[in-house]
Amino acid sequence: MAKAEGYELYALTFRYGQRHAREVESAKRIAAALGVVQHLILDLGLRQIGGSALTAEIPVPKGRGVEEIGAGIPITYVPARNTIFLSYALAWAEVIGSEAIVLGVNAIDYSGYPDCRPEYIAAFEQMANLATQAGVEGRSKLTIHTPLIHLTKAEIIRRGAVLGVDFQLTWSCYDPTPDGQPCRACDSCILRAKGFAEAGIPDPGPTAS
Amino acid sequence: MAKAEGYELYALTFRYGQRHAREVESAKRIAAALGVVQHLILDLGLRQIGGSALTAEIPVPKGRGVEEIGAGIPITYVPARNTIFLSYALAWAEVIGSEAIVLGVNAIDYSGYPDCRPEYIAAFEQMANLATQAGVEGRSKLTIHTPLIHLTKAEIIRRGAVLGVDFQLTWSCYDPTPDGQPCRACDSCILRAKGFAEAGIPDPGPTAS
Repeated sequence: MAKAEGYELYALTFRYGQRHAREVESAKRIAAALGVVQHLILDLGLRQIGGSALTAEIPVPKGRGVEEIGAGIPITYVPARNTIFLSYALAWAEVIGSEAIVLGVNAIDYSGYPDCRPEYIAAFEQMANLATQAGVEGRSKLTIHTPLIHLTKAEIIRRGAVLGVDFQLTWSCYDPTPDGQPCRACDSCILRAKGFAEAGIPDPGPTAS
Repeated sequence: MAKAEGYELYALTFRYGQRHAREVESAKRIAAALGVVQHLILDLGLRQIGGSALTAEIPVPKGRGVEEIGAGIPITYVPARNTIFLSYALAWAEVIGSEAIVLGVNAIDYSGYPDCRPEYIAAFEQMANLATQAGVEGRSKLTIHTPLIHLTKAEIIRRGAVLGVDFQLTWSCYDPTPDGQPCRACDSCILRAKGFAEAGIPDPGPTAS
């Protein structure tokens, strides 16, 4: 969506000790397919902090219903994860002189994470514009764009199809099988399947890594 | 100051590719002297982002006057550094159930960094209380404490002396000499010397590492 709007793209991906490091490989292939200027992959020490099924030795919930998924903050919530991600994006944006950060958070058909909500994003943007040299000197205003935040998963799939996204490059699963396939039972797999089904588009599944 | 107020202490230090990694050794000794419950040292990938004399191959300014130091944002500014530090502190605070983050930023006798100002800290606190599970559920409110923010360097030294701080454990220099001594010429050394001089307290200098 950012590319279609004419932005020059700088991609930022994090290895934060997530179980699904497979998504980093998908990010590389997507960045290459989009022709980004630079793709930075940063290693973060979140496993030292723990507190989540995605980064600690806590099982990922499986086979939950869609209503259950939206009903509370699950154990896959990583404390302050998006705040840490956005803070690095803010640092890099300042170094390269970018005026926009684009983040794919979604507050519909989602897992109830506090740091995916519009009021959180607005508060981060306000803080970011006080945090940096450019903000202080009034040279530029940084905007955080979240183009998916109010879309259903089905709308996201349809939008992607219109833009020619190769869904074979994408990855959603929190807890891949030992042979690198989606588990089809975690919250993220369930929400993905619901999105494709409601959009009436078949999910091609990931290509071999 | 937090210990004197009765807080149970969890110390957080960052290796962020800074030239003055010597300060991490000082942090370890200070944490031990204070009897902290846990001291977490995290490795961050800020060198990959660059943009500062503290993390990239850019010389640290030397021999500047105190007026010059306060006149603009210097090249030792690390883009979004305090935002990244506070984001990790926020994550850890949520995991351990802490209601307070204490940060030693100072907006008097300082280097003009945007992320040391009170309005920045207030904006971060507001964002932080929207970012986390506890904030969303109204279970607790996180407060960011900056007890040094309005003190002059001389007042900070005097406060430390009253509290029995062993200044030999402390470190200020941005660019230590090859044998691990303060350079006595960078902004941080100059502001430290001014603080001790105005407080009328001799600086014992660091003990050998």
